[in-house]
Amino acid sequence: MEILFATSNKNKFNEAAQMLKAEGIDLKQYSFSYNEIRSDSLEEIARDAITAAYKRCKLPVFVEDSGLFIESLSGFPGAYSSWALNKIGLDGILKLMEGKDNRSAYFEACIAYRDGYDVVTFRGKCPGRISEEARGEDGFGYDSIFIPEGEHQTFAESIELKNKLSHRYKSLLEFSKSLNSRR
Amino acid sequence: MEILFATSNKNKFNEAAQMLKAEGIDLKQYSFSYNEIRSDSLEEIARDAITAAYKRCKLPVFVEDSGLFIESLSGFPGAYSSWALNKIGLDGILKLMEGKDNRSAYFEACIAYRDGYDVVTFRGKCPGRISEEARGEDGFGYDSIFIPEGEHQTFAESIELKNKLSHRYKSLLEFSKSLNSRR
Repeated sequence: MEILFATSNKNKFNEAAQMLKAEGIDLKQYSFSYNEIRSDSLEEIARDAITAAYKRCKLPVFVEDSGLFIESLSGFPGAYSSWALNKIGLDGILKLMEGKDNRSAYFEACIAYRDGYDVVTFRGKCPGRISEEARGEDGFGYDSIFIPEGEHQTFAESIELKNKLSHRYKSLLEFSKSLNSRR
Repeated sequence: MEILFATSNKNKFNEAAQMLKAEGIDLKQYSFSYNEIRSDSLEEIARDAITAAYKRCKLPVFVEDSGLFIESLSGFPGAYSSWALNKIGLDGILKLMEGKDNRSAYFEACIAYRDGYDVVTFRGKCPGRISEEARGEDGFGYDSIFIPEGEHQTFAESIELKNKLSHRYKSLLEFSKSLNSRR
């Protein structure tokens, strides 16, 4: 079974392809960029994106939108995570967290899939906290400053941890269950 | 002469109404909200917004998009200024600026106007710098941390300064000149 993943982010694609391979699903990257809407809701963004992607490729396709939501920063950078990372970097996030006792944060992902008829969405969430400094070389994005709940290593220090606990993994797992149940 | 200003921001509306009154133009607020596109370009955002606004009101109407662009933060918060202010506040911006020698920044505004046929745009820019701390009670948004070039007071300490030098004033002035030349 082969389906398209519409994304321009190579890291995201590789991560998803590896995870879904284990579930018997082959992914093909559909390089796709368009004007995303502004919204604080990942689901709203993903639903808008899948409409645009399907309109172009006219094949079963999914998109994934994700973000890091930091409690003491009112959910910043949230749905604008990759944009904020390009602008202020991990240093900027750590600076904003200086002196904050509450370092709680969560990663969230929302997949939207259109098989030709309906759009279905799948969410995954990973609670945790922002580390005091960046640690680790694996992963990408905010992985080196995020420690999942109950753990001591950042996602970038332990890719095994990430592959087991991440928001993306959880959303992909729900997605693959749904795909496999329809076969 | 009366035209519509499509905005949901009361502060923006009041400021523009006052400025354009002096040029013989009466503004009426057209309360309008829609899903803005994501873009780092104010002009692209304004052009998209005016298309949406005109489609609804079918009358001569303008929109204005503006932002604060900080040099040492790669232009952050830029086109996402009001969103970022709600999330991390002025304190967040000042924290990000700690230890930065380069405090250069500029405000920029872009007006897009549609009279029924064409869309025309008008830009205004105000160079300056980020103050060390928030000062002043007037204005709104980032006014209390922005000092225009060659001055010592923030926009929030001197509304006269703001009304004379601001990006919004400059873009509105160009706009009113264009409107008055067509009468």
